[in-house]
Amino acid sequence: MNVAVLTFEAFNELDSFVVAALLNRLSEEGVRAYITAPTETVVSKNGVAVQAQKPLEFANEADAVVIGSGMKSAEVAADPKIRAVLKLDPARQLIASQCSGAFLLAALRLVEPGRPICTDLASAPAIKALGFTTPGKPFHAEGDVASAGGCLSSQYLATWIAARALGLEAAERMIWGAAPVGEKDAWVERALSAVRPFLRLSAAA
Amino acid sequence: MNVAVLTFEAFNELDSFVVAALLNRLSEEGVRAYITAPTETVVSKNGVAVQAQKPLEFANEADAVVIGSGMKSAEVAADPKIRAVLKLDPARQLIASQCSGAFLLAALRLVEPGRPICTDLASAPAIKALGFTTPGKPFHAEGDVASAGGCLSSQYLATWIAARALGLEAAERMIWGAAPVGEKDAWVERALSAVRPFLRLSAAA
Repeated sequence: MNVAVLTFEAFNELDSFVVAALLNRLSEEGVRAYITAPTETVVSKNGVAVQAQKPLEFANEADAVVIGSGMKSAEVAADPKIRAVLKLDPARQLIASQCSGAFLLAALRLVEPGRPICTDLASAPAIKALGFTTPGKPFHAEGDVASAGGCLSSQYLATWIAARALGLEAAERMIWGAAPVGEKDAWVERALSAVRPFLRLSAAA
Repeated sequence: MNVAVLTFEAFNELDSFVVAALLNRLSEEGVRAYITAPTETVVSKNGVAVQAQKPLEFANEADAVVIGSGMKSAEVAADPKIRAVLKLDPARQLIASQCSGAFLLAALRLVEPGRPICTDLASAPAIKALGFTTPGKPFHAEGDVASAGGCLSSQYLATWIAARALGLEAAERMIWGAAPVGEKDAWVERALSAVRPFLRLSAAA
């Protein structure tokens, strides 16, 4: 399972790196997440320059796509060049947005107006104005499309992708390994609780 | 308050970026965290190349120093060139280690043998073998030196530094802003609970 973590100029490091680093804890089991960007280098909102690991086109062939957030998410969602490159398809990909990544999720009509999209509190009014509902919750998924709101809920996106890719036990192992010492079971339970209502797992998972 | 987040080859993205991104949420109040490395570019354990924002020497003049972790922390701690550059001083700096950053904290004798250092479960046996105790907890501080164990406990390091720099109310605001939507108060309380026993705040804070 290859995961494209879409990362644009002025990106939020929490949103791109928490999900990528958590999922890469499962690399020996076949999950690989890549910082994926339209340019060779992207600079974060805090001035950190990062080299893209994959070009934007990689998103089209990835098994899962996470749309990260940043200061320019609305411009990114309106950019005809970016929209022309992306051919995302929930029939063959898991797709998720983090915080203001919701703008691109909405622009690509990966969620139908009237349906819920989780996003951060600052983006919620604009997402509502586009005709979506914004649940006051950190995570929501319908079928193969998910959204999360609040930077640190990126761990719930990672949990959902891990559970869908390898089953709940692998998702547990991923969170357990990264959770604070002495609090690991509680962190696993919190992450699983956030995503469990939205999983349609096979009997084997 | 300038914060140097020490980031070495094969670094763990969670450990460097969670603490840096959280602290930079307080940039308008004067806190600025920088990815600080001995080389112009450092590559993470997952192959992400990042340009250093500051050279290693910046650590000596920073108001706070966070020693990040990675796959080569033991080599970093033993590297005479790195040790020669670093002149850290808890009398004028807050100093903290994350996970295997504990090796450099120990090598620089910023904690006395016999005292506790929090670290990740994989590093704990080696830290014990060096003569330190390893509490089964995510965070510990004595005076101006702290340590945290388990990648995601990096948010507790950020909370401690924010509270020491600007007071508890600013630390609360920082975590609240980044916490998952619908869970913000619980995340603030968890982070404050982890660090509160170790704070010696002025009456005004």
